[in-house]
Amino acid sequence: MPSLYKAVATNFLVDTYLLVGWKSIGVAVIDLAERAAQQLRLGSMVVIYDGDEREGEADLVVHAQNAEPKTIETLRRDAGGLICLALDAGFAKALGLPFYTDILEASNLPIRAMECTKTAYGDRPAFAIPINHKGVYTGITDNDRSLTITKMAELAEEKNPAESFMRDFYSPGHVFLLIGRGIENRHGHTELSLELARRAGLSGAMVLCEMLGSGKALSKKDAEEYARKRGLAFLEGKDMIAAGARTDGGDDI
Amino acid sequence: MPSLYKAVATNFLVDTYLLVGWKSIGVAVIDLAERAAQQLRLGSMVVIYDGDEREGEADLVVHAQNAEPKTIETLRRDAGGLICLALDAGFAKALGLPFYTDILEASNLPIRAMECTKTAYGDRPAFAIPINHKGVYTGITDNDRSLTITKMAELAEEKNPAESFMRDFYSPGHVFLLIGRGIENRHGHTELSLELARRAGLSGAMVLCEMLGSGKALSKKDAEEYARKRGLAFLEGKDMIAAGARTDGGDDI
Repeated sequence: MPSLYKAVATNFLVDTYLLVGWKSIGVAVIDLAERAAQQLRLGSMVVIYDGDEREGEADLVVHAQNAEPKTIETLRRDAGGLICLALDAGFAKALGLPFYTDILEASNLPIRAMECTKTAYGDRPAFAIPINHKGVYTGITDNDRSLTITKMAELAEEKNPAESFMRDFYSPGHVFLLIGRGIENRHGHTELSLELARRAGLSGAMVLCEMLGSGKALSKKDAEEYARKRGLAFLEGKDMIAAGARTDGGDDI
Repeated sequence: MPSLYKAVATNFLVDTYLLVGWKSIGVAVIDLAERAAQQLRLGSMVVIYDGDEREGEADLVVHAQNAEPKTIETLRRDAGGLICLALDAGFAKALGLPFYTDILEASNLPIRAMECTKTAYGDRPAFAIPINHKGVYTGITDNDRSLTITKMAELAEEKNPAESFMRDFYSPGHVFLLIGRGIENRHGHTELSLELARRAGLSGAMVLCEMLGSGKALSKKDAEEYARKRGLAFLEGKDMIAAGARTDGGDDI
């Protein structure tokens, strides 16, 4: 159970940091978004629930630089959805990365007629293109997906990443790139997880995977229980948005 | 354990069919490809291993018409790869479905430079586009992926499916369409599974999901063990190709 120990230790560190950082000595009202950001910074996974009014879905997320093969295995075994890599708009622009729908439109093929402009829960899709790093074999194994994602995390640190991106990765692959539209424009897991990375001071490259139950999305209650048992932060979209508003206002932090 | 009982019962039916069908009374030398085709026809999943010289990977496959939510759940829990829907070239043509690489090329965007023309194991990729049926909510749940896939199986029975396809499905979605290049041209899981459907007298619409172990592809031995425990047929690419050659020669069947 080393990962559980790691999570408990992470929690202790986070709570201590927050207590000391805020110079609180009484009951600490710990900001949920800040606590989740701290966990993320320490390499941990976090559970993000978007909201009952949207997908009503929890995603298991982690920063791209911490997407080790064991983490990919946990995402596919415990969450079960599609393992995607969300990039913030700035990073995507630096890469020269279009949305998938931009490619469909530019192709002008008849298949364009199938373009999704609005999902059932009201948003435009976040999908860009599926990629693999050229160092992979099949692209789908834990080792291969970890390689693709961690190499993308390295690119996020480069000043002009477009050349390396075009040279070292290919498409179609097995890691699905998403582009964030900014938390002020869209409240999907893409934007929520990227906002969490921003708050944590990490680059805009977040891995996400939908948590599934039998037949349906994993219920909020079960997702909370999963997070509690493993010592992971559980964050709701509304907490993140409220935290953002507070940060902007400069009152609480 | 109802699925185990179902598999055992399926096996009994298949073996009986083959014994009676071939009018054998001694030791039946059961054609592996035929046995797998029979299982598939009865709605069962089958394990297909491509070959040591190629991906060295086993896929869990099932015909699209049998992709019930419970089956999707089994694919994601037990196999763990990407849940794809392989269509034969004729069906894809009738739908007006291009390869993903055709779309990249037609777009003429700079991202085109990333196009994969050959994978590490030597083949061109089989990817077309990712779709959802318009009746889904998020698209990723077992219920949603089952809906998308079984609706595609219904389309495979239509004479002119392009109109329904463009009207009732959208892209990007969460089910990854693949196009088969024919067993005579490529020996990937896409072609092997479609060849199995053809032998079973079923339409060219097969669901496949890579079987993963920790870090790497599930070993051939472990994939065989998985199939044996559940009473599923285990088929190797070479058996299918040999069976095809025998069928063509008209000697054995």
